[in-house]
Amino acid sequence: MSNKIMVVNAGSSSLKFKLYEMPEEKVLTQGIFERIGLEEGIFQIEVAGENKKEYLQLPNHAVCVTHLVKVLVEEGIVSDLNEITGVGHRVVQGGKYFSDAALLDEKSENLIEMMNSLAPLHNPAHLIGIRAFKEVLPNVKMTATFDTAYHQSMEMEDYLFPIPYEYYEDYDIRRYGAHGTSHHYLALEAKNHELKDSKSQRVITCHIGSGASITASKDAKCVATSMGLTPLGGIMMGTRCGDIDPSVYKFIAEYTNQSIDEVYDTLYKKSGLIGVSGVSSDTRDIEAAIKNGDKRALAAAKLFARRIADYIGQYYIRLGGADLIVFSAGIGENSPYFRKLVVDNIASALNLRLDEQANKSSNRERGIISTPDSKVKVAIIPTDEEIMIARDCIRILNLN
Amino acid sequence: MSNKIMVVNAGSSSLKFKLYEMPEEKVLTQGIFERIGLEEGIFQIEVAGENKKEYLQLPNHAVCVTHLVKVLVEEGIVSDLNEITGVGHRVVQGGKYFSDAALLDEKSENLIEMMNSLAPLHNPAHLIGIRAFKEVLPNVKMTATFDTAYHQSMEMEDYLFPIPYEYYEDYDIRRYGAHGTSHHYLALEAKNHELKDSKSQRVITCHIGSGASITASKDAKCVATSMGLTPLGGIMMGTRCGDIDPSVYKFIAEYTNQSIDEVYDTLYKKSGLIGVSGVSSDTRDIEAAIKNGDKRALAAAKLFARRIADYIGQYYIRLGGADLIVFSAGIGENSPYFRKLVVDNIASALNLRLDEQANKSSNRERGIISTPDSKVKVAIIPTDEEIMIARDCIRILNLN
Repeated sequence: MSNKIMVVNAGSSSLKFKLYEMPEEKVLTQGIFERIGLEEGIFQIEVAGENKKEYLQLPNHAVCVTHLVKVLVEEGIVSDLNEITGVGHRVVQGGKYFSDAALLDEKSENLIEMMNSLAPLHNPAHLIGIRAFKEVLPNVKMTATFDTAYHQSMEMEDYLFPIPYEYYEDYDIRRYGAHGTSHHYLALEAKNHELKDSKSQRVITCHIGSGASITASKDAKCVATSMGLTPLGGIMMGTRCGDIDPSVYKFIAEYTNQSIDEVYDTLYKKSGLIGVSGVSSDTRDIEAAIKNGDKRALAAAKLFARRIADYIGQYYIRLGGADLIVFSAGIGENSPYFRKLVVDNIASALNLRLDEQANKSSNRERGIISTPDSKVKVAIIPTDEEIMIARDCIRILNLN
Repeated sequence: MSNKIMVVNAGSSSLKFKLYEMPEEKVLTQGIFERIGLEEGIFQIEVAGENKKEYLQLPNHAVCVTHLVKVLVEEGIVSDLNEITGVGHRVVQGGKYFSDAALLDEKSENLIEMMNSLAPLHNPAHLIGIRAFKEVLPNVKMTATFDTAYHQSMEMEDYLFPIPYEYYEDYDIRRYGAHGTSHHYLALEAKNHELKDSKSQRVITCHIGSGASITASKDAKCVATSMGLTPLGGIMMGTRCGDIDPSVYKFIAEYTNQSIDEVYDTLYKKSGLIGVSGVSSDTRDIEAAIKNGDKRALAAAKLFARRIADYIGQYYIRLGGADLIVFSAGIGENSPYFRKLVVDNIASALNLRLDEQANKSSNRERGIISTPDSKVKVAIIPTDEEIMIARDCIRILNLN
């Protein structure tokens, strides 16, 4: 039986959606509501391969959902609302409670709410989206797919912080990771394609966008990941510092007279590529500045690549070697320059050679970018978190 | 010509000394003053192979130095004070100003004082020691050897933090490293002995005591090191957490209502092995607790070993491979259990095999502890910071 599954990613003032025909995994439409709750909202939807854009009042998320189902029927994308047999929501933080996707019911919604403090920018917004869909489509069953679930298979020594143990027991302060749905997708794709004929499936996935994390997977199971308690940890990012000597926190506070919250804000929004370069958090701007001889931009790029290489080194050890290194997400899929910068850092130790020609691909093309004699393979795999959410949805709802 | 060189490590209430005959590098005597400024002080000195202990009033460091030179003459260790031709002081923090040992004069002393804020527990005490010797032995030239100097050869991308660049420019917030004198000694020893016949000298030195750091050296030159702005960064230690997701700082503060300074104190003194295990910061107690089935002690030990393995992985990549991994300092020299735990984490990826029998040596015995077919060699090398300070002293003073 075929099912139409709606995949949703709700933010505080936005709502992204993608409608799938499952199990064929065919995308029927996709789009986004933006500026929800502001004076004038924007709605975009793909209809028959064309993007339609509309400016309208979007006072809240429920209004968006009502509008969406109306348009879906009007445009003939669904003939009847009952065709939508499931809605899968992206949820950033599932804490220790979710090691897999889950049916959305009172209990799971309460748990998502309990995790608000660990993801204050995300979980409350997801709940608003979930409740809006429930209001407009009360008879459709819904599921949640958690960015953290894939990382719940980590061993204690990979998720504990070396801090007083009672903070872990009393406040759940530990490493949760992020981008789990993406890393899981990439590790599965690698296992089923790039490493189909390999004896082992030790994969290091580099999800490198403006937010970025690196994960070590064995047989498509997470072993270790770079992001920590929140998306501030791990590698350096566009505006975030990643893991750091914590005395830097105190010294910045002291020298610049900032509060704990202000330093946090500085490390979250004014650090990383933008902080070091002074140019931009966007690698395209950094690349342009480097071409113009900007030395701080070059330092930022080198530091960024080195921090990624540091984690690849950690995970090479952690996995007892590596069969494949995957680049994905915004920068990983689209920047030959940064891919090469990272590979230059790791090539010698890992006996790895970049196929310079293949690396030049800069439009999300999947493929191997190492040479055939390279001891560790390197690949670009465009990520697809939505399809994972749709798959979770039909699996959890027993629709397939 | 032979010189008698006094090597000094001054703390706020202690003063350690070691007298060398140079260039023979013969230790003539050594000892320590403790409880300086307290009601009753303690003085210990080695005379003809025997330890002499004395309880006496030690109101300040100058009194200690006066007493020391008196005892040296009385015991016939020096026949005349003029035999002491140089004093070499250990200084923890030299900041960006010292990439080598230096003659102590008004200028260098001022610079050491300027670095007080980066090493508030150490630099002020060193200056007290320096001034005490100057008072008692005004005609003897003195030098300072900095724990940070060896790390000044790092490239920018190895010492910059991914934070706003102006904090580096305005406040010198960057990675300085620690234990540099030890890492330098170990890298030199490895180059001249264990790797004498090796084509390359890529060495990862693990200085693992209650404070601990790991350094990557190429041809006995520092390439990267784990400690950061202060000795809080890098790997997990006895009571310190090492590098961490900085959001942990904010969340601890929020959840437990601690100030910036209190959280710093928690991360510095109540974290690491003691924090996770709840047992002790001393690995001997941790080992004993593990034998008794203590699960948190085991988690602490595993986490500790994994964080060390993480850095070995980083530096393996950074050096383009490794020829030798060195264990040194308290734990590194004396704990077969922890050495094995670390090696178990890295053996598979690096094609490295531990010689279990050789590893059982637990009394600072120098030697290779990997098997002959191991692709990367592993060695125990007892460290010796004092001899480096004595060598610096005669070199800087042109005495050899």
